[in-house]
Amino acid sequence: MIRIKLILAYEGTDFSGWQIQLRDRTVQGELEKCLETIAGKPVRVHGSGRTDAGVHALGQVVHFDCADDRRNIPWQRALNSLLPRDVRVVDWAEVPDDFHARYGAVSKTYEYVLWHKQEFFLPHRRRFAWDCGPVEFSLMEEAAAVFIGEHDFAAFQNVGTPVSSTIRIITEISRHPGLAEHETVWRFSANGFLKQMVRNLMGCLVNCGRGKIRPEEVQTILENGDRSAAPATAPPQGLTLMNVEYLS
Amino acid sequence: MIRIKLILAYEGTDFSGWQIQLRDRTVQGELEKCLETIAGKPVRVHGSGRTDAGVHALGQVVHFDCADDRRNIPWQRALNSLLPRDVRVVDWAEVPDDFHARYGAVSKTYEYVLWHKQEFFLPHRRRFAWDCGPVEFSLMEEAAAVFIGEHDFAAFQNVGTPVSSTIRIITEISRHPGLAEHETVWRFSANGFLKQMVRNLMGCLVNCGRGKIRPEEVQTILENGDRSAAPATAPPQGLTLMNVEYLS
Repeated sequence: MIRIKLILAYEGTDFSGWQIQLRDRTVQGELEKCLETIAGKPVRVHGSGRTDAGVHALGQVVHFDCADDRRNIPWQRALNSLLPRDVRVVDWAEVPDDFHARYGAVSKTYEYVLWHKQEFFLPHRRRFAWDCGPVEFSLMEEAAAVFIGEHDFAAFQNVGTPVSSTIRIITEISRHPGLAEHETVWRFSANGFLKQMVRNLMGCLVNCGRGKIRPEEVQTILENGDRSAAPATAPPQGLTLMNVEYLS
Repeated sequence: MIRIKLILAYEGTDFSGWQIQLRDRTVQGELEKCLETIAGKPVRVHGSGRTDAGVHALGQVVHFDCADDRRNIPWQRALNSLLPRDVRVVDWAEVPDDFHARYGAVSKTYEYVLWHKQEFFLPHRRRFAWDCGPVEFSLMEEAAAVFIGEHDFAAFQNVGTPVSSTIRIITEISRHPGLAEHETVWRFSANGFLKQMVRNLMGCLVNCGRGKIRPEEVQTILENGDRSAAPATAPPQGLTLMNVEYLS
């Protein structure tokens, strides 16, 4: 048995998210179909985590096992020749059999793209940005500082996935210039994220930037741990999983 | 009667090109539908030129006439609230009644995006670039120099649109860095372009860059004016109409 790690890029628009489903088209589903063709039998893939419908990835990490006699397969070329055009293998490696894409991840980075001039929202960017309109960056950055460090993020978790703990350590929330004028990119790094946590944090920060929530109130929402008191989830298309890190 | 000029951006992916058609979804068709809603009667739109199915625009220029009592309509906001998300009005102005989007155009600029590492072709860029693979830029630039200036471009025109002359003046063909790694952007400016001319020029340049045609041969193809001797048309999705210029 050998274990293979893949780095995947995908455009989430036409996928019902990462996780395999009975009927809907998912990234895991498409990947497992192609792997079965190559391996000659069903292959189970483990991702670093799920991404929602419409969420993109440039650096999703996954692993799977297959028989030793598949050792010499050029996985990137073989898979890319079979996969649909909206998912690509961008790198791969054979890894030790204790590597685990999900349990071994020590840090994840997401980026979220905002578009600030709704009347100039370019069609080219509609699958990759949220046209949230004008916001005050300084208010957002003041609120973002509240999230940095170790906190219980129960108020920023959507229901549906049971987790043993809702405590996470956010190491970075930073603003960067976008690809297009009127765009900003918000980078979020943490040791892990709860379900829809980045989109919930982004929704909250945009509400701060619109002057609807004061940064001090964010502190209270975080401390009270009540999801229903927190602002709405930001839409999926602005979000991209950029990178997953592992020890060594 | 007042005359209105619009600057349009659209993503060409889901359109059967610019020009209105009986059945298929076109940019002109969608725009005229919305204008009819606002004007209360059919409105004919004149574009600076047609774009093919799959070709994008960031600066398509169009004009139309409507009754004086529509003078105070905020055209950008009104149209963008009705138009589908893949076409946007990015600017507008009331213009003198001798302005004509097509006949008044003195210069057009297109950009074409190439992707040079096929195994790393990102899903996010597949609607906006041609993954032509590795090419030698110096050979392409040598060939591009042949096209600069006033020439008969009959060999680079696809059939279907009768024109009085196939002579055009190309003022610029230049290479620029792309938005993503492995991408280059090729800018083409001329006093006008024949049907599919930019895509035909790009197809020829890429063939030069692959070493399949020598730059000297390009001179011969251009002089002989024989479309069947010229290389294949580049695919539409790499192309964007950037800008149309008018006198004063």
